Amino acid sequence: MSHQEDMTAFISSFVAELSIAGVEDVVISPGSRSTPIALIMAEHPRLRLHIHVDERSAAFFALGIAKASYRPVAILCTSGTAAANYYPAVIEAGISRVPLIVITADRPHELRDVGAPQAIDQIHLYGHNVKWFVEMSLPEAGEDSRRYARTVCARAATTAASFPSGPVHLNFPLREPLIPNLYEGMFDMLERPEGYVGIHQGKLTMPDSFFEKLADDLHSCEKGIIICGPLEEAGFVEEVVLLAEKLKFPILADPLSQLRSGGHSEKYIVDAYDTFLRNENVKEKLKPEVIIRFGAMPVSKALSIFLKENRNSRQIVVDGGNGWRDPFMSATDMIYADEPQFCKSISSFLCEEKENGYTRKWCELNNMTKDLLSRVRDTEELSEGKLFHMMAELLPENAVLFVGNSMPIRDLDTFFYFNKKNIRVMANRGANGIDGIISTASGVAAHSGPLYLVLGDLTFFHDLNGLLASKLNSLNINILLINNNGGGIFSFLPQASHPKHFEKLFGTPLDLDFRLATEMYGGTFDRISQWDGFREAIEKNMHKNGLKVMEIVTSRDVNLKEHRDLWNYVSREIDVLLEGGAQ
Amino acid sequence: MSHQEDMTAFISSFVAELSIAGVEDVVISPGSRSTPIALIMAEHPRLRLHIHVDERSAAFFALGIAKASYRPVAILCTSGTAAANYYPAVIEAGISRVPLIVITADRPHELRDVGAPQAIDQIHLYGHNVKWFVEMSLPEAGEDSRRYARTVCARAATTAASFPSGPVHLNFPLREPLIPNLYEGMFDMLERPEGYVGIHQGKLTMPDSFFEKLADDLHSCEKGIIICGPLEEAGFVEEVVLLAEKLKFPILADPLSQLRSGGHSEKYIVDAYDTFLRNENVKEKLKPEVIIRFGAMPVSKALSIFLKENRNSRQIVVDGGNGWRDPFMSATDMIYADEPQFCKSISSFLCEEKENGYTRKWCELNNMTKDLLSRVRDTEELSEGKLFHMMAELLPENAVLFVGNSMPIRDLDTFFYFNKKNIRVMANRGANGIDGIISTASGVAAHSGPLYLVLGDLTFFHDLNGLLASKLNSLNINILLINNNGGGIFSFLPQASHPKHFEKLFGTPLDLDFRLATEMYGGTFDRISQWDGFREAIEKNMHKNGLKVMEIVTSRDVNLKEHRDLWNYVSREIDVLLEGGAQ
Repeated sequence: MSHQEDMTAFISSFVAELSIAGVEDVVISPGSRSTPIALIMAEHPRLRLHIHVDERSAAFFALGIAKASYRPVAILCTSGTAAANYYPAVIEAGISRVPLIVITADRPHELRDVGAPQAIDQIHLYGHNVKWFVEMSLPEAGEDSRRYARTVCARAATTAASFPSGPVHLNFPLREPLIPNLYEGMFDMLERPEGYVGIHQGKLTMPDSFFEKLADDLHSCEKGIIICGPLEEAGFVEEVVLLAEKLKFPILADPLSQLRSGGHSEKYIVDAYDTFLRNENVKEKLKPEVIIRFGAMPVSKALSIFLKENRNSRQIVVDGGNGWRDPFMSATDMIYADEPQFCKSISSFLCEEKENGYTRKWCELNNMTKDLLSRVRDTEELSEGKLFHMMAELLPENAVLFVGNSMPIRDLDTFFYFNKKNIRVMANRGANGIDGIISTASGVAAHSGPLYLVLGDLTFFHDLNGLLASKLNSLNINILLINNNGGGIFSFLPQASHPKHFEKLFGTPLDLDFRLATEMYGGTFDRISQWDGFREAIEKNMHKNGLKVMEIVTSRDVNLKEHRDLWNYVSREIDVLLEGGAQ
Repeated sequence: MSHQEDMTAFISSFVAELSIAGVEDVVISPGSRSTPIALIMAEHPRLRLHIHVDERSAAFFALGIAKASYRPVAILCTSGTAAANYYPAVIEAGISRVPLIVITADRPHELRDVGAPQAIDQIHLYGHNVKWFVEMSLPEAGEDSRRYARTVCARAATTAASFPSGPVHLNFPLREPLIPNLYEGMFDMLERPEGYVGIHQGKLTMPDSFFEKLADDLHSCEKGIIICGPLEEAGFVEEVVLLAEKLKFPILADPLSQLRSGGHSEKYIVDAYDTFLRNENVKEKLKPEVIIRFGAMPVSKALSIFLKENRNSRQIVVDGGNGWRDPFMSATDMIYADEPQFCKSISSFLCEEKENGYTRKWCELNNMTKDLLSRVRDTEELSEGKLFHMMAELLPENAVLFVGNSMPIRDLDTFFYFNKKNIRVMANRGANGIDGIISTASGVAAHSGPLYLVLGDLTFFHDLNGLLASKLNSLNINILLINNNGGGIFSFLPQASHPKHFEKLFGTPLDLDFRLATEMYGGTFDRISQWDGFREAIEKNMHKNGLKVMEIVTSRDVNLKEHRDLWNYVSREIDVLLEGGAQ
C-alpha cells in the first residue's frame, strides 16, 4: 500500500472507533498538518463537525458541548502554538471534570527541534493537566496498526469519560503528503464492527456495614446539615432530597447543585444562606454537629467561613471522583463513593426521623431572609441584584442559565432562589476563570436551549472571538451583558480602599461600545435603560433566533452600595426578630 | 514585622532589582492574587506599566516590546487559567529567542489541589518551554529573604536575556491579606544599591587556528553562497556584508535577515531567489560547493528545496545560540559561535578574492528576475503581490514593517527587494502561528515606529482583542488588512484540489465587517478598492495618530492564479534567456 493508503486506513479506523465510543461532536480549527484527520472526520456520517478559527474559543466551545451532553467531545488542531491555545480550556476541563479528547497533529520525528516551521514540543504539552497523554505511532500498514489505533481511541474516550472525567491528549505525527485516499466504506470495520473494546467502568461503593454504621451515627445526631456544591451526577438530586427527608437535615444548595430549580420537594432546601450566614448571632445559633458535603466547593464566601469556623464538628466529604475538595482542612471523613449510591445506601438504613428545632431554625431563617431580600425588587434603578431576583420568573421552561465568574455567580447565589421550573444552571467553576465563557455557553447552546448567558463586560471582552461560533453555527443564544465598565468584583476587595492605582490596575474601564462587536457577528443588540425595557427585551428575544445581546448598564459604586445596604438591612432585621423571640 | 510588612519588603526588593537588571516595561493583567506585586510595580518610578485584560494578548504584547527593544519584558497575572493564556506567547518567545520574564501569582501551598477557587497546578506550568522555572518561597522576614528575592530576580533577567534568549517563569505563592504596606523609599536598596549581582555573559568563540583553517577552505572554493535567515544580532549585517565582499560570495537574504533594507552595500545581496530557484535549469547551473548559513530557517520553500537537493555540498550552519537549525539533515558543520564575531574572524584571515563567474550568475539571475517580476506593477486589480512590491517605496524612513504568517511573509519574500531605507522587518517566526500578531506588532509600536502591520483576515480575527492595546495605550499603528475572506494559503496546498470539504475545513470564510471592530476600538477604517486610493490612504494616515486599518479586499482564486502565472512567466523567460546565452 502507498503512504496515503496506510495513513487513510489508520486514521479512518481511529475516527470510526471515535464514533462507536460515543463521540458525536468534533470541533475543528483549520490547519495544514491536521488535514488527513479533518478530511476523514468530515467524511464520517455520524460525527457533527463544528469549525472555529480561534483554538482558545474552540476548546471552550467543545467544553460547553461536553458539559451539556455529558459526552466526550473531540477537538482537533494543527501543529504549533495552535495547540497551546487549548491550554486554558484543558485545565478547566480537568478541574471541573469534563471529558475532552484533545487531538493535535504534529510534525514527524525528523522535523522536531530542528527549526522546521510550526514545530513546537508537543510531547506532554499540557503537563499534568490531562488524565492521559499518548504520542501516537506514525500511521503504518497492517492490521495490527489498525487495532492499535482503535484500542487507543477506545481507551481515550473511556478515560476521558470515566470518573473523574477530564481531558486526554493524543498527539499524531503525520508525514506529507497529507491528503488521504478517501474511499467508500472506509469506516466499515470488518473486525469487531460494534467497537473494538468496550470498557465497562465500575462505580465506587463501600460495604453495607460501613453505611449501616454511618446511618446509625447520623440518626443519633440532632444538628446536622447537608451541603451540596456544584455537582451534576445523574440521579443525585432525587436521592439527596430523599436522604434529607429521612434525616430531616436542611440542604444548603449551591446554585450549581441543580437543587434550586426542578420538580423535587423544596421543603428542606436552603438557598439564602449566603446572606444570613453573614450574621454572627445566626451562626452562633446554627452551629452544627455534623456536616455532609457533596460536590465541588460552594461559591458562597459566607458559607466557606461557616465551614472554617466549625472545624470541630464532624465534616464528611463525599466524592465519587477521588478528589480532595477541602480547602479549609475541615474534613473529618473523606468518603470516596458514588454520590447517588451513597445517599441511597444511607437512606436504606434509616427510619423516618422526627423533625427537630435545629432544622426548623434553618428553614425559618431562610424564609425570613428571602422575604427581606425581596425588597430588592423595589429598586427602580438598574441593579445586578434585582436582575438575578427576576431570572427565575422570566426564564422560560427548560432554559439553561449560564453565568460568568466574578460577580454574576455570586449575585446568582444571593438572589436566585428555588423554583419549580426545569432550569439547568451552569458555570465554569473548575478554575473560575473569566476566559472562554462566551464559547463555553455557545457550546452548551449548540446542544441544549434556550440558553441565557449572564456575564460582566470584562468577561464578555475576554472571549469576544467566541461570538463567531454563534454566527458560523447559527446558534440561538441570549446574552445579558452587565456592563459596569470594568472589574466590578474588585470594589468588594480590600484594594478598593487604596484609590491611588485602583482604576488603572483593577477597575480597568474599557469604554467599549459592544453594539459594534455584536453587529459584526450578526447579532441584535438592545441597550436596556429601565426595567420595563428589560422585560420587553427578554420576551421579544424569546421568539427570535440567533445571537441577541441585551446590555444592562450599571455602576460599580452603586452596586457595591446596594449589596452592602441590603446585607446590613437583612442582618439588622434578623437581629431584631431573633431578639423578639422568633428563635 | 507584620505579614504585610514582610511581604512588602520581599516584593519591593524583587521589583527594585527588576529595574536595576534592565527591565523597563511590565505588562499587567488585572487580578486579585497578584495585587501586592501589581501595586508595588505601579509605585516604582522607572517601570512603565501597560495594562491588558486578555492575558493571551498581554503576553504577545510583551513579546513585541521585547523584540523591538532587545530587552527583557516582565508580564504579571493572577492565579488560575489566566497564566495558561500566556502559553502561546511563551512558546513563541522560546523558539524565536526573545527574553520574557513571566511572573504568576499563586495560591499558597495549603490552598493547592484542595478545591480552592482559581487554583490550578502552576508548578512547571509551561513545561520545557521556559529556560528556567522558580517556585518562589513565601515572602518571609529578614535580610536573607530580601537577598534571595534580589538574586533570583537578577538571575531571571539574565537568564532570559542571555544566549539564546527566551522566557523564564517565576511563580509567587502569596497569602492574604494581599494589600502591601507601601512606604517612601521602599525601593532604596541599602545593600549593593547598584544591583545585587551583575551577571556577565560571555560569547561563544573558537580558537584562531579553527577560523584560519576554515578561511583557507573557503578561499579555495569557487562556488560558495551565504544564506542569511531571520537574525537580529547587533553588528551582524555589517560583518556579513564585509565577509561576502572578501569571499565574493552572494548573500541570499531572507526578508527577516535585516539585509534587504539599509545603508550597506547591495552588491552581493540576492533577494529574488524565491522565484528563480523554482526553475530546474537555474538550480542545475547554481549548484554550490559550500553554503554558509546564519539565522533561523529562511521562509522560502524554493530555497528549502535547494538546500535539500544540495546535501552533498558542504553546508556550514553558524549559530551563536547552540540550537539545531537543520530540518533537512543537510548540515555538514555545526559551528556554535557568535555570528558577527565569526564573520569578523574569518574575514581577518582572508585576502580579497577575485570575482568569479558563479557569483556573477547569481547576481545576473537576481536582477533579471526582479525586472521580470516588476510587471506585477501593471496589475490594475488589487493584488497581494503588487502591494508588497510597493511597500519599499511607500514606507517612510525608519518604519517597522511587521508581517503576518501564512501568505504575507511569503509575499514579502517574493516581492519586497533591497532598498536603502532604514526599515526593520519583523514577524513571529518561532512557531509561525497566526495567533497574537496584532498584539506583538502593538508591542513593537509601543517602542518603535512608525509601525506598519500587514496581515490576512484570519490572523486579524484571531487576535482582534489585541486591538485593545492601541486604545488603552494610544498607540500609533497602521494595519494593512488583506481580506480575502478566509485562509488564502490553503489554495496553494494539495487540499485545494479536493473541493468536497475545502471551503468548510480550509477556506473558512468568516464574512465579517471588520470596520465595526475597528471603530469599537476607536480606530479609523478605510476600505481600499483601487490602487490610487491605497496610496492616498497610506499617505493620509502617515500624518495621523492612533489605530488606522486599511482593508484591501482580494480574492483567493485570483491571487493563486496571479502567483502561478507570474512564476511560470518568469521561469519561461529565464529559460529563453539562458538558452540565448545569458549564462
